[in-house]
Amino acid sequence: MTNSAFDFGMIGLGVMGRNFLLNMADHGFSVIGFDKDQQKNDALEQAATPGTTVKGVADLATMVQLLKSPRKIMMLVPAGKPVDDVIESLLPLLQKGDVVIDGGNSYWKDTLRRVEYCKEKGLHFMGMGVSGGEKGARTGPSIMPGGDEEAYRHVQPMLEAVAAKVGDSPCVGYLGKGAAGHFVKMVHNGIEYAIMQLISESYNMLRQGAGLTNQQLHEVFSKWNEGVNQSFLLEITRDIFLQKDDKGTGELLDKISDQAGSKGTGKWTSQDALNLPLPVTVIDAAVALRNISSLKEQRTQAAALYQTATGKVAVAQEEFIKQVHDALMFSTIICYAQGLAMLQTASKELDMQISLPESVRVWRAGCIIRSGLLPLFYTAYQQDPSLPNLLLDAEVAKLLQQTEGNLRTVIVEAAKTGLPAAAFMSALSYFDAYRSERLPTNMVQAQRDYFGAHTYQRIDMPGTFHTEWQ
Amino acid sequence: MTNSAFDFGMIGLGVMGRNFLLNMADHGFSVIGFDKDQQKNDALEQAATPGTTVKGVADLATMVQLLKSPRKIMMLVPAGKPVDDVIESLLPLLQKGDVVIDGGNSYWKDTLRRVEYCKEKGLHFMGMGVSGGEKGARTGPSIMPGGDEEAYRHVQPMLEAVAAKVGDSPCVGYLGKGAAGHFVKMVHNGIEYAIMQLISESYNMLRQGAGLTNQQLHEVFSKWNEGVNQSFLLEITRDIFLQKDDKGTGELLDKISDQAGSKGTGKWTSQDALNLPLPVTVIDAAVALRNISSLKEQRTQAAALYQTATGKVAVAQEEFIKQVHDALMFSTIICYAQGLAMLQTASKELDMQISLPESVRVWRAGCIIRSGLLPLFYTAYQQDPSLPNLLLDAEVAKLLQQTEGNLRTVIVEAAKTGLPAAAFMSALSYFDAYRSERLPTNMVQAQRDYFGAHTYQRIDMPGTFHTEWQ
Repeated sequence: MTNSAFDFGMIGLGVMGRNFLLNMADHGFSVIGFDKDQQKNDALEQAATPGTTVKGVADLATMVQLLKSPRKIMMLVPAGKPVDDVIESLLPLLQKGDVVIDGGNSYWKDTLRRVEYCKEKGLHFMGMGVSGGEKGARTGPSIMPGGDEEAYRHVQPMLEAVAAKVGDSPCVGYLGKGAAGHFVKMVHNGIEYAIMQLISESYNMLRQGAGLTNQQLHEVFSKWNEGVNQSFLLEITRDIFLQKDDKGTGELLDKISDQAGSKGTGKWTSQDALNLPLPVTVIDAAVALRNISSLKEQRTQAAALYQTATGKVAVAQEEFIKQVHDALMFSTIICYAQGLAMLQTASKELDMQISLPESVRVWRAGCIIRSGLLPLFYTAYQQDPSLPNLLLDAEVAKLLQQTEGNLRTVIVEAAKTGLPAAAFMSALSYFDAYRSERLPTNMVQAQRDYFGAHTYQRIDMPGTFHTEWQ
Repeated sequence: MTNSAFDFGMIGLGVMGRNFLLNMADHGFSVIGFDKDQQKNDALEQAATPGTTVKGVADLATMVQLLKSPRKIMMLVPAGKPVDDVIESLLPLLQKGDVVIDGGNSYWKDTLRRVEYCKEKGLHFMGMGVSGGEKGARTGPSIMPGGDEEAYRHVQPMLEAVAAKVGDSPCVGYLGKGAAGHFVKMVHNGIEYAIMQLISESYNMLRQGAGLTNQQLHEVFSKWNEGVNQSFLLEITRDIFLQKDDKGTGELLDKISDQAGSKGTGKWTSQDALNLPLPVTVIDAAVALRNISSLKEQRTQAAALYQTATGKVAVAQEEFIKQVHDALMFSTIICYAQGLAMLQTASKELDMQISLPESVRVWRAGCIIRSGLLPLFYTAYQQDPSLPNLLLDAEVAKLLQQTEGNLRTVIVEAAKTGLPAAAFMSALSYFDAYRSERLPTNMVQAQRDYFGAHTYQRIDMPGTFHTEWQ
């Protein structure tokens, strides 16, 4: 091997970086990793499949020297300042035309800034979302690159090799300009938050509301995971119910604290949706519920003060299971519809030129939100790449119409029994507002004009009006 | 009158600025206003009450020269760059110790920056929320100042004179450090968005769901406005139902477009709540519904696709009116509770030292969200200024317990009939989550640990754990 024979370099050899690199080596590429921590370099080399070309070095300049030109370097380091630090340390070592990829969960506005900064220096900088967790990185993640299309063409063969596949189709594609890759990944994570919250509400309905055991819940979710709603998140939920507590008796799930953490991507999705603006109400509810979950002390006080019985549902168990299934399917579709509508709006409003068909295509396998629903959504966006909202697709509408009644019933039960159902209720109230040709927000406009002279429009003539209200 | 005899100066003589200044003159202060537009200066002087000292000038330096030292200058100009422009034009004209007040709807982070900037120049800069609209500015607004306490003492007598009164108590007070004044005003507006949305949903329930006419709705809201829930927003809603269409027949309300506008303060509230983080879900829903309202073309398409009948409610009219009343009262309390909890959290997290009792006290009259409920909330925060959430106050709890059942019924009807109820549902789902000692978010934590090794806590032992899930 010559002195500059490596195809691809990785900065940061945590589990994700190591696994991504090993995956690439398994596909015939020669790869080199850099980590200051020599133990991680050793761990990388030791984990390499025999016969593959994998090297770990503790000196960045060495790694750069050993890469073929134009160099293709990816980093998987914590979002924020570490990314800027890596860029600064690379600048004196690189040449014009080299490609630097940030594969972490960076905030897209940071990525946009870095793209511009690196462009001034003659470098290609790409923000790239990677989903699938540790296991996905090793065996086939979903990859969401965006930025300079020319830069993408340099790394396309390698990314296509390592990505998850649907048939022959790799779950990677050029998604759009600037920070489009990280934007798509952010929205992916927002949808992930929402589906997780919906599953947790479904779990609660069936456990608290219908008295199912963990074993029964395992069976229910096993069955659900065989239908059109099949998904990675349903699959792991199915498994979670059976996981034994290794520090006590029974199932581990019952011992896990209900205070949920987050890394910020859900919050960003909600905040950026407000700026577009484009409503993503189920994601908002999911983020809010994680935040409410952290108010443990207040919740304990409130539970003592409000003795409202959280009752059992009035529906027979078998029937209720079917209803919750449909409620979950309906609401899950709403999550995707909101997230994808956000991508469609951002594509224009933020000039990212995001490809909706490509975004949905790369989510079909490898990522956390992969689901049996995605082929349906893919078809919808292939037919109309500028579709503003999945709810306007006739095939999606059929699924919603089939499940709508049972979502309504589940919400009726939740309201009667006191079972918290923030995400379910957000899905329904969004649907009922979205399908309303006339909303009562004429009242809001009347009020605004009354107290603030903010003016209003009329339904029967053009123009802007103000009234001296009596 | 000497050359520097004026007590108070105003920059920007739009309706708000003019009215605020005339109000101050009526209380015996000599006031001078500056506007580049000489017509506005003339309008100011012409509108002055005979015997009061009111002057308008078209030259800023002249106004500054004519003010007593330390000078007290307020601006009421559009938020954003105009405020910075005014500061820059004032800097060469002012002396150390002068007080500059921004009375507009500036974003609090801008105010924080300006406070620091002016401090370097030896000036006191105060961000001050003013609520009450044009009429309130003239006859007694609610005033929310924050920033340098010493600066506040200089203007306190004047502000107390012009503010709305509850008995002898003026609706103005020192609310906290830095940008506290504008932060409190922002949250005030967030609550305003939420209550307006709740009223619009109540209106829709009774109009679409129970078939009431505008005349009947007027009577219902008249009655509601006489109870404990009495409020400015109910009062104007009552009047809105009767306003005749001056361009056609019938009531104006029916002719007003349902596409609702906004100026951004509701959005800021939701975004900043996410940063704290502190859930304000009813405000989130209100902001989202305004955004959904703007998607008119999509809503029209969706209405054609989803033929779900929006039915009549199954409850007798008189009974349903009572239920909607209680649902509105319950949910309105939740709005205030969320907004005030946000102030409490911001007080610490953003080091604003916001006084909760003072914030509630100044909202009791003059402002858009004044309500018969505020004395109750004031008592709660007087008893415990560090109360994390109004829901934990025993007297507030009583009102919620009295109305909770009817909110549940209204939501059951909304879910069954398809009447959109985003804000009502957000209020209930927040309540049901907040009063849950145990939420199903243990499932979210299990999932996060499963696919991302994000770790979790246990309920039965301290520490942080990770499981190799099977």
